[in-house]
Amino acid sequence: MARIEARILKGFRDYLPAVERPRQEMLGAVRAVFESFGFGPLQTPAIEYADVLLGKYGEEGDKLLYRFRDNGDRDVALRYDLTVPLARLVGQYHGQLQFPFRRYQMAPVWRAEKPARGRFREFMQCDADIVGEPSHHADAEIMMVGLSILRALGVSEFVMRVNDRRILDGVMDVVGVAPGLPRVLALRAIDKLPKVGHAAVLQEIRDQVGLEQTTANRLLELLDRDLRTVDQLGPLRAALAGSEVGQRGLAGLTQLLGIVANAGFGDRVEIDLTIARGLDYYTSTIYETFLSGHEGFGSVMSGGRYDGLMDTFSGKPTPAVGISLGVDRLLAALIDLGLLSASAPPADLFICLLDPADYGPLARLASTLRAHRVRAELALSASRLGKQIQGAARRGFRHVLIASAADLAAGTVQLKDLSSGVQTALDLSAMSEWAPRLAIPTPPEQIPDLSVQSD
Amino acid sequence: MARIEARILKGFRDYLPAVERPRQEMLGAVRAVFESFGFGPLQTPAIEYADVLLGKYGEEGDKLLYRFRDNGDRDVALRYDLTVPLARLVGQYHGQLQFPFRRYQMAPVWRAEKPARGRFREFMQCDADIVGEPSHHADAEIMMVGLSILRALGVSEFVMRVNDRRILDGVMDVVGVAPGLPRVLALRAIDKLPKVGHAAVLQEIRDQVGLEQTTANRLLELLDRDLRTVDQLGPLRAALAGSEVGQRGLAGLTQLLGIVANAGFGDRVEIDLTIARGLDYYTSTIYETFLSGHEGFGSVMSGGRYDGLMDTFSGKPTPAVGISLGVDRLLAALIDLGLLSASAPPADLFICLLDPADYGPLARLASTLRAHRVRAELALSASRLGKQIQGAARRGFRHVLIASAADLAAGTVQLKDLSSGVQTALDLSAMSEWAPRLAIPTPPEQIPDLSVQSD
Repeated sequence: MARIEARILKGFRDYLPAVERPRQEMLGAVRAVFESFGFGPLQTPAIEYADVLLGKYGEEGDKLLYRFRDNGDRDVALRYDLTVPLARLVGQYHGQLQFPFRRYQMAPVWRAEKPARGRFREFMQCDADIVGEPSHHADAEIMMVGLSILRALGVSEFVMRVNDRRILDGVMDVVGVAPGLPRVLALRAIDKLPKVGHAAVLQEIRDQVGLEQTTANRLLELLDRDLRTVDQLGPLRAALAGSEVGQRGLAGLTQLLGIVANAGFGDRVEIDLTIARGLDYYTSTIYETFLSGHEGFGSVMSGGRYDGLMDTFSGKPTPAVGISLGVDRLLAALIDLGLLSASAPPADLFICLLDPADYGPLARLASTLRAHRVRAELALSASRLGKQIQGAARRGFRHVLIASAADLAAGTVQLKDLSSGVQTALDLSAMSEWAPRLAIPTPPEQIPDLSVQSD
Repeated sequence: MARIEARILKGFRDYLPAVERPRQEMLGAVRAVFESFGFGPLQTPAIEYADVLLGKYGEEGDKLLYRFRDNGDRDVALRYDLTVPLARLVGQYHGQLQFPFRRYQMAPVWRAEKPARGRFREFMQCDADIVGEPSHHADAEIMMVGLSILRALGVSEFVMRVNDRRILDGVMDVVGVAPGLPRVLALRAIDKLPKVGHAAVLQEIRDQVGLEQTTANRLLELLDRDLRTVDQLGPLRAALAGSEVGQRGLAGLTQLLGIVANAGFGDRVEIDLTIARGLDYYTSTIYETFLSGHEGFGSVMSGGRYDGLMDTFSGKPTPAVGISLGVDRLLAALIDLGLLSASAPPADLFICLLDPADYGPLARLASTLRAHRVRAELALSASRLGKQIQGAARRGFRHVLIASAADLAAGTVQLKDLSSGVQTALDLSAMSEWAPRLAIPTPPEQIPDLSVQSD
């Protein structure tokens, strides 16, 4: 076979074990929280008929689809997100699903973007949605799922910022920004407030949207980022007196925040009137979530209510609300916070092999250690002991176990702590006492603490 | 938006929660065993440059690639298996990987097959490989990983059948079957022995390979399926006296089985001289694994040593040995054996909502239950109580919890067991006593028992 250059496509990534290990740990903790709320796992195909995906992501999105003719000349495309496949599935199985339908899905999606720092052509999405429930309890539950995930991952300081699309529409109506493109451009400008500041946003609104100075000022005044609680919305309420949609948004947001507070999560949720969310399909509640002191990572989980999208396939009114985790961002933040490690050892213990003839008895010992929940890697070749220990240290192991077949027969093994260099003789008959200490507890803790303060 | 018919491509599948739940449970248990041996998780892109994949699967395989031009007119293809991407990765990162490199990968692959019963265009592969270790310890470890997975999944009766490609080559040399196509056809015929029987295989060998009756008989006589232990191989040893490759195969298989027996797994491994494995790249050890009494499912995990494939990319001799789980088959077998359920409830407990005003306190209760590891689904709307209980029963819930906000304030809730119909009053202050009983233990047990009998 001719030698082919080993390389991957730009915008794609290999995840070697050092990175994939904490990533899987994080996703496992996320999965456990989803399931603790009764969300069921779902998988859909990577390839869909192109017409199922086309027209759902706007003109720009259509262009970013990995679209091709398959071997049967069918017009197909790789999935672009997990929401449209969910809508397709809900339409297809509408008669047999039981609503409210709570599902989560973790899967890669593909977008033919221009690769850039932090922008990839293949990346994982991790979504939870409730389909078929119009009440605010569904919005509240989805928000609580997201907040519980951060708690379970060991994050202590974070806040979910909530808004309602209808409030934005009301403000635009009142101030006089025409629906359609001007409104989209205005929202896009406002979305940048935390990054570029008041003056730059004002400038952009005047230049891009063509608003007069006073109108632009009035817009930013009403969507004040310092209004964080319902109590502070009095002036906005007065300004929206003439906008029916704005009033409905205010009433909805007020009710939702009341439910979330009653449910014990009030300290983690704030209003942020500048949250706009890019996607067109949101209809009311929208939220983004930031790690306090690490706002630079951007929102680590976002979502909202989208009551029209599902109807495209189901032909029936099918309200829905969901949240999507930014897997890459969240992982980077957790590593940055020291809650996950990208240099964790491959296992808890490395077992040295002094002589190939010892392999069988050592393999039996390894099996018994694994039954005690110790992840044990056994050497495959009997290279020089010093070299084995050095190799284990370089790979991040904390402990190595050294024993010959004769030692095992005598019931003793040597355990060397690679950080202190201390070597201890351990009695095999007392394994149930010392083995649990070898299993390194990995943050976040295995038992997610989801408890809330009682009334 | 125009209404689009909600449908998926033929040969592709949606996994609704009822099926995806046990599937994830199985994959989680498999992952835990891989990690208990020190195997690290790996992910590679779904899309590779076409030339990386082409020519590795034979002419037929090349035709089954999902190959297309991407938006930058690059010739790309979806991965066809996980082995060639691993070889590409090992070549690409050869300088920075530490060998032996133990990795596992669970990911979908795509093949443009003609869809048929049990044959899909998208399916999950689940592989573990050790790269860079030529000794039989690596073969033995991979086999033990596979056997430990079946133990961890709760399967009690199974056997791994082992052979060595070099024995097959030796027998072919001795009997006089020419290398190349005749040998491939002969192996393919012999592979069918358990399915179609002796006479049909004999017929196929005569017709397809063109062997004479006596030669064909001699071939089947040497590759006798009843030879299951090293002790029984005397006559074969004598017959292979003139074949160097055959003798190396016999010596290798004998040594390997000795190691596996010494390591405590001898009772799960047998010789089967008719195991041939279809793929060309295997060079010595090969194995398949069957559930006793359920051989009809076919091999649930197979693999072997392939010492040449990695060299294509790395340009250096890079020995490798691996095992691949048949995820679909194994899942079907576990459900058939009652070790996994496709009708498990979405959660441990359904919490009824009597009045929308009670939602907050009940959500707090749900959080506290989740902290006690009870997966609790809370109703989103206060429909009639009887309807809520019926709905929960239909969805497979075992228990429902009924409480008003007043009940919660008084510190009592009602727990109804849906199988017996018995309703019990529970004291909230004693939650740590009764909550653990609600968390339904799911087979297989969370702690995999990997212990082996001691010497």
